[in-house]
Amino acid sequence: MPPSSTNASMKKQSDKQSPSFSLAELAGKVKCPIEGDRSVRITGFAGLDHAKKGDITFVSEKKHLISLEKSGASAVILPEDLNFSGIPALKSSHPYRTFVEVVTLFHSPVLIPSGIHPAAIVSPTADLGKNAAVGALSWIGEHVVIGDNSVIFPLASIYPGVRIGKNVVIHSHVTIREDVRIGDNVIIHSGAVIGADGFGYVQDKNGHHIKIPQTGTVIIEDDVEIGANSCIDRAALEATVIRQGTKIDDLVMVAHNCEVGEHSILAAQTGIAGSSRLGKKVITAGQVGIADHLTIGDGSILAAKTGLTGNLKEGSFVSGSPHLDIRTWRKVWASAPHLYDLIKEVRKLRKRVAELEKKEESQ
Amino acid sequence: MPPSSTNASMKKQSDKQSPSFSLAELAGKVKCPIEGDRSVRITGFAGLDHAKKGDITFVSEKKHLISLEKSGASAVILPEDLNFSGIPALKSSHPYRTFVEVVTLFHSPVLIPSGIHPAAIVSPTADLGKNAAVGALSWIGEHVVIGDNSVIFPLASIYPGVRIGKNVVIHSHVTIREDVRIGDNVIIHSGAVIGADGFGYVQDKNGHHIKIPQTGTVIIEDDVEIGANSCIDRAALEATVIRQGTKIDDLVMVAHNCEVGEHSILAAQTGIAGSSRLGKKVITAGQVGIADHLTIGDGSILAAKTGLTGNLKEGSFVSGSPHLDIRTWRKVWASAPHLYDLIKEVRKLRKRVAELEKKEESQ
Amino acid sequence: MPPSSTNASMKKQSDKQSPSFSLAELAGKVKCPIEGDRSVRITGFAGLDHAKKGDITFVSEKKHLISLEKSGASAVILPEDLNFSGIPALKSSHPYRTFVEVVTLFHSPVLIPSGIHPAAIVSPTADLGKNAAVGALSWIGEHVVIGDNSVIFPLASIYPGVRIGKNVVIHSHVTIREDVRIGDNVIIHSGAVIGADGFGYVQDKNGHHIKIPQTGTVIIEDDVEIGANSCIDRAALEATVIRQGTKIDDLVMVAHNCEVGEHSILAAQTGIAGSSRLGKKVITAGQVGIADHLTIGDGSILAAKTGLTGNLKEGSFVSGSPHLDIRTWRKVWASAPHLYDLIKEVRKLRKRVAELEKKEESQ
Repeated sequence: MPPSSTNASMKKQSDKQSPSFSLAELAGKVKCPIEGDRSVRITGFAGLDHAKKGDITFVSEKKHLISLEKSGASAVILPEDLNFSGIPALKSSHPYRTFVEVVTLFHSPVLIPSGIHPAAIVSPTADLGKNAAVGALSWIGEHVVIGDNSVIFPLASIYPGVRIGKNVVIHSHVTIREDVRIGDNVIIHSGAVIGADGFGYVQDKNGHHIKIPQTGTVIIEDDVEIGANSCIDRAALEATVIRQGTKIDDLVMVAHNCEVGEHSILAAQTGIAGSSRLGKKVITAGQVGIADHLTIGDGSILAAKTGLTGNLKEGSFVSGSPHLDIRTWRKVWASAPHLYDLIKEVRKLRKRVAELEKKEESQ
Repeated sequence: MPPSSTNASMKKQSDKQSPSFSLAELAGKVKCPIEGDRSVRITGFAGLDHAKKGDITFVSEKKHLISLEKSGASAVILPEDLNFSGIPALKSSHPYRTFVEVVTLFHSPVLIPSGIHPAAIVSPTADLGKNAAVGALSWIGEHVVIGDNSVIFPLASIYPGVRIGKNVVIHSHVTIREDVRIGDNVIIHSGAVIGADGFGYVQDKNGHHIKIPQTGTVIIEDDVEIGANSCIDRAALEATVIRQGTKIDDLVMVAHNCEVGEHSILAAQTGIAGSSRLGKKVITAGQVGIADHLTIGDGSILAAKTGLTGNLKEGSFVSGSPHLDIRTWRKVWASAPHLYDLIKEVRKLRKRVAELEKKEESQ
Repeated sequence: MPPSSTNASMKKQSDKQSPSFSLAELAGKVKCPIEGDRSVRITGFAGLDHAKKGDITFVSEKKHLISLEKSGASAVILPEDLNFSGIPALKSSHPYRTFVEVVTLFHSPVLIPSGIHPAAIVSPTADLGKNAAVGALSWIGEHVVIGDNSVIFPLASIYPGVRIGKNVVIHSHVTIREDVRIGDNVIIHSGAVIGADGFGYVQDKNGHHIKIPQTGTVIIEDDVEIGANSCIDRAALEATVIRQGTKIDDLVMVAHNCEVGEHSILAAQTGIAGSSRLGKKVITAGQVGIADHLTIGDGSILAAKTGLTGNLKEGSFVSGSPHLDIRTWRKVWASAPHLYDLIKEVRKLRKRVAELEKKEESQ
């Protein structure tokens, strides 16, 4: 097979045309008032230190206005209560959020053409929605359903019986195991594995491990993003569930039968053992570990490297391994460097008290 | 290439026919006595809370009999010394183990048809056993040997010279590097990498890192299971070895020249540095780290997040980083929250002792 | 498509011919003087315990000469000030480094033939250098540039706009996302993901996470090695950078906008949060975590499982989570096991002091 000519229609990276807006057009799209020249041409965006002619940038705090003076930016997004006369400005109640909206207008992610690439292997029983795309060398198993506008990049594996919603993006080398269900607007990054067997064994009389069939599945709700090389294991009996709007970073492990509540954040290398249930808007920082069968209340925060060994009430903030309330933990760690001297101090005190007792007795 | 019609013979997930047994048939297969109606039809299985008509469930402890009364299950597996009159029962000395046996009877894992998919790339020098299967878009290098009934799912990479035993399952996006040897009944989950180069360098005079060729290999013995995205690196000179019956969870790292003994358990995100040797039936909980060149005795247990920095005798149980004997470690952590107050207490004592000393002198 | 006959030209593993040298030839190549028979035939290499006839081995310290006497090796590399009369020797100022040079002469890594495999999908706009190789079932996107002698193993994904230098090796199941730049002599192991979206969100008024487009890229400089299943995320605005000569182990996470300085070492399962900057020759041991926006001075060492929460000066050596200077940390951990007894001791002292005070008052 010669290099596929279908690829020729793929969006060219090296000479892509960035869009260009007048400041007035941008202001209309992000719904912000303008101060200064409405006609200035905006062709890109950058942080304060890298902005050059044509770029729009943003300032969130007054102290950064000095850097703005040295910046080559053609326009700036400012807080409502800040003024700057050097260049035209959009005024916003949340400049960074507005900046992200602007960046989203400029950013056109790399795509592949809709339809099935001739070098993809797609089961005839699979059902693809309107404008769905399956890249070269991807495998779509029996009875898979893929919604409208969803994109499967090259070299992804979708096992039989999987259902994928609309506007989903699945990158190269992702594995979606059999019967997993994925909602709308989900993004799954390269190498993630959704629905591998949970880690469950029962011991026989010799202490050998007999595999417990993992007959459940995984449910990923709408608006979830899953990072590169993360693993969400399938349940033993029912389903491992990632609820709507939750964002998962790279190299995260969610074990079988877990449930992660809506709009939660799991930072890189977090690991959650079997059957634990996280509430809504929970945040785990990097390398957090959560033991099995725990319940974590809504809005809880687990600091980096926390080792959680018990349930958490709503709104908890913990750190350490095993975890402590953040205030206790801070006291422990402020005290820890003094422990060595403390031991010496107590030894001295012991001597002095013994001395006193001896004198007391001799009186 | 049009969507492959070979896929049409693939096991259908969405309308698979689950098997169905009379309770008497099940009892015969798992060798348990029956109490009650032997003819009741069992069409599935579920945990106590989810069981419905047709399902068999299990109860391990007397206190769960109350839930059983509310359950819709058609049969139950009970401990030998418990009785329940509501529904027919199998009596077992280990109800959960029996339940797993029953689940295994009902569970038919997704498969691909035997033979080589026309879109697989298989070297003519490769040697495939009877009923072996190679899925679409997998690559089988020169002189690879694959045993009877082994299944290579789509999009797996088997480098030249690899030998794979019988009844092995290798999932999508697995890499098996050159010359690795894999025993019988091994399961390797998606994204695992077996035999990547160990991490070894020697510094030149400028402190630059010169790669040490990793000329060894990896040996995976029979009945091993390796989780998604785990990495077992090849040895510098001889072989990294995973012994029989050991089970490895997702995102685990086993560095070059390690040996993991028989029937061990490595939970998710465990990392083992180079040349360490684990005995038999060792258990590492999640996120354990083991330094290099250590020896760990049979049956040792490392609690979650342990950072092991020294050898362990047989039957050790450790926690903490650096590790402590579990009893010492529990005392440390029970004490840690009091450290801050302890420092204040000692400061007060020092004052009081000084006060006493002054009075003593003045007498 | 039948099993590709192109594979037949692939280097055979199982019957590869190892090279063979006279000791004089080896001595010339590694520039070391010989003691003893210059004509002895060397056909392989091994560590002291495994060496057999035909092998060359090495000894770094006098105490190992005893093992050398029992060894079957045909030659040995010795420190300049050690003598051994049993077998011919090369004398070296750094025996292990010389041994690595010798191993490199014997080791011929597995290869694939140059050119594009007929089952690869390569964009006609891609530009491949002289003797570059693209394996079966790999995908090379639009406008990709691959330098001379670089090898893309089967089942790798190179997104549009990527530029790869000379003598690069990319293994199976690697993903290189759009526009990433990779220097010369880089090795990337299986499953690594370079350039996946950084983990960045801004919250809307409901606390829902709005994705910040990750419009930057990743730059991997010359002589970098990246381990299996590691992830280097693309920057939000500019570039995540891995500088020349840095070596990264398996399952490492480098978040968006980080910079890792020249000739650094990141051991397995290290995680670095966004925008942190490591200097030159920094070493992180296994499972280290580094918080975001930190600056780490040249030559710093972070012991295994360190949780770094602040900047480090040049030449720092830290451990613990949160990190402490290594000397403080060692004191803390030497003291920790005594904490429980210390609390009891202080309680006793308190009683004794109260006792003394009472007596004092009554006098």
